[in-house]
Amino acid sequence: MPVPLVALLTDFGSADPYAGVMKGVLAARCPGVQTIDITHAVAPQRVAQGAYLLRVAYRYFPPHTVFLCVVDPGVGTARRGLAIQTPYGAFVGPDNGLFSLALDDIDRDGAPWSAVELRATTALSHTFHGRDLFAPAAAALACGEPLDALGPPVHDPIRLSPLRLERPTPDRLVGDVIHVDHFGNVITSLGPWTWQDTHVALADGLRVRVSSARVGVRNVQIEGIVRTYGEVEPGRLMALISSDGQLEIAVNGGRAAAQTGARPGDRVTLRFQP
Amino acid sequence: MPVPLVALLTDFGSADPYAGVMKGVLAARCPGVQTIDITHAVAPQRVAQGAYLLRVAYRYFPPHTVFLCVVDPGVGTARRGLAIQTPYGAFVGPDNGLFSLALDDIDRDGAPWSAVELRATTALSHTFHGRDLFAPAAAALACGEPLDALGPPVHDPIRLSPLRLERPTPDRLVGDVIHVDHFGNVITSLGPWTWQDTHVALADGLRVRVSSARVGVRNVQIEGIVRTYGEVEPGRLMALISSDGQLEIAVNGGRAAAQTGARPGDRVTLRFQP
Amino acid sequence: MPVPLVALLTDFGSADPYAGVMKGVLAARCPGVQTIDITHAVAPQRVAQGAYLLRVAYRYFPPHTVFLCVVDPGVGTARRGLAIQTPYGAFVGPDNGLFSLALDDIDRDGAPWSAVELRATTALSHTFHGRDLFAPAAAALACGEPLDALGPPVHDPIRLSPLRLERPTPDRLVGDVIHVDHFGNVITSLGPWTWQDTHVALADGLRVRVSSARVGVRNVQIEGIVRTYGEVEPGRLMALISSDGQLEIAVNGGRAAAQTGARPGDRVTLRFQP
Repeated sequence: MPVPLVALLTDFGSADPYAGVMKGVLAARCPGVQTIDITHAVAPQRVAQGAYLLRVAYRYFPPHTVFLCVVDPGVGTARRGLAIQTPYGAFVGPDNGLFSLALDDIDRDGAPWSAVELRATTALSHTFHGRDLFAPAAAALACGEPLDALGPPVHDPIRLSPLRLERPTPDRLVGDVIHVDHFGNVITSLGPWTWQDTHVALADGLRVRVSSARVGVRNVQIEGIVRTYGEVEPGRLMALISSDGQLEIAVNGGRAAAQTGARPGDRVTLRFQP
Repeated sequence: MPVPLVALLTDFGSADPYAGVMKGVLAARCPGVQTIDITHAVAPQRVAQGAYLLRVAYRYFPPHTVFLCVVDPGVGTARRGLAIQTPYGAFVGPDNGLFSLALDDIDRDGAPWSAVELRATTALSHTFHGRDLFAPAAAALACGEPLDALGPPVHDPIRLSPLRLERPTPDRLVGDVIHVDHFGNVITSLGPWTWQDTHVALADGLRVRVSSARVGVRNVQIEGIVRTYGEVEPGRLMALISSDGQLEIAVNGGRAAAQTGARPGDRVTLRFQP
Repeated sequence: MPVPLVALLTDFGSADPYAGVMKGVLAARCPGVQTIDITHAVAPQRVAQGAYLLRVAYRYFPPHTVFLCVVDPGVGTARRGLAIQTPYGAFVGPDNGLFSLALDDIDRDGAPWSAVELRATTALSHTFHGRDLFAPAAAALACGEPLDALGPPVHDPIRLSPLRLERPTPDRLVGDVIHVDHFGNVITSLGPWTWQDTHVALADGLRVRVSSARVGVRNVQIEGIVRTYGEVEPGRLMALISSDGQLEIAVNGGRAAAQTGARPGDRVTLRFQP
């Protein structure tokens, strides 16, 4: 059996001991388990952002990974706890849509998955199910316990709407800003694509526009799509395909989010100019 | 023997390589050791906060864990270095009270512990005993060396005053704000309790008040104790029992610390209304 | 064979899943690998700061460690990817000077090293070679693949200028501020030394001056060098030798960077007074 592996994604931040406590529970219940932090910086209770960041990451982990994901505004209420087994690893966390972008992906591949509703095995606190419910379940799966030992089957995990990607006219795609990363790069809901997909469009004179109803936010227009940051002179805005296949707006050596004022939720339009 | 495990708690932050260097020392001296971060965000040199955060976490780790804890304003002076063996793991760090809330707990259980004063095994720098003294000692314990090989016995580790919990009149409990977490939840020194303990009080019409001498800080009153965040409408203050058993003030979907202005050190009164 | 170990140093921050994704790739390609974070808080694209922080850390790790270092403003351009094998571990990352302070050190010791230019083994994205090129190479080395299997030899990795340490007159040393740490301690390019080296100078009446062309930055003078923080009364500036041997300016219980206004790049003069 491979070394048990649990990857964590939460909105706990890294100042408090909450993530460390979950790892303590994992180590106590699945001796020798290794843990990897995907992120603990999901904005508090922003389930949709958590779902996106999980989709960026999960495919790069080995298939025996258990993804322990806790963005859980409904902790202590009647919302279900889930464990989902897939060919790309198992997902454990609250049933609030956190896994839906990953599941959409997996469904698109036609890969099978099955899910159960977690039964508590210890006394539950009312505010920290990451420690009391989800970490014990993740430890059990990581150490080889079968999925159906954790609770009764579930067939309808909650799904969020997929990332926005509309085509209101043949020459326009419309989406949203979904994430601003540490470098100030602006990631949009338009994609996933590879650079090859957009190569022709580039030749055709493609325009990207970011707009927002907020006062003081400029409408930004960028012409064409480049391949990498170094192709554009320092300080200038560019559009490119991000490493996870989304349309991204960036500045070579600068922060596109600061330069454009773009924030999650702003509208992004991609226009092909014939 | 289980996989050696060291859990870290420091005030080093995570921008500098200090915590990584300690882990390098651990890996060099105890091959295969696993490490878990409890937190590196103790406020610089705030020993009492470190003691609290350690108490929140240690019970959830397996008993062979070594807790390497460095909040060390006295580094390089005559203060002692300690290693303490307990049934809940070993503690390694400076003798300044950092372990005293955990030791109070362990004493309350009647569990035995023993301590030694660390002898240096390498040349010590004057400013980084985490690397030169404490990590080598933690590595030795994690890899199975007996406690008494590390130095002579100590019977009087420094103790901080316990968390404040006074009952000046039969109908009032008085304590302090001790921590504000990543979600803006305000944790107080009143506790530890379980929700069951406070159930009756709830029925009896209990009031929580936070007050401070600082200008501009409102006195806040909350009626009753709820079980979980979702029981209260969004935006409203509530009192509840935190996941580690302390009285906590929170806001469903908001930040109680911002809404109340509460900061560590502010006074908290819990009043039973007959 | 020891447990494979990879230490990471990047400018990715810890809010995004980028570092976690690299660890997923490592775990998928080198089962059971352990990872240690040195830092992910190198200032975006500040190669020189990354080189300094790596030099602070690498000697404390076991010699089978692979250092996966990604501060990569040239990602996607023609810059080479490198793997370097040394007696103190292997270094993997972009060829932009990131390893040059470590290599200077190793050259000073007369220790041998060899390097190769990495050949891609998977399709490369244009913006995330940490995931697509460097993590796979680090995984290969960590799991025992020989260096020359990764690509053709390289003899001229890019070198940055060494840390500034000039002696314009016999009684003066001139350097720069190179880092401000989490405690506000100001680390300079003057060193590395041990406290013993500077002991005589101390008796001789040594002065440290920090100056800057920025408006509003005071010129600061400190007399003498102390051994540790606790030797100076709280709130007063002191100079001492940092735990990695550089001249450091600190305040007992305070933040020297705030008190002096010093920032990376400011000039530091050490003057011996006969």
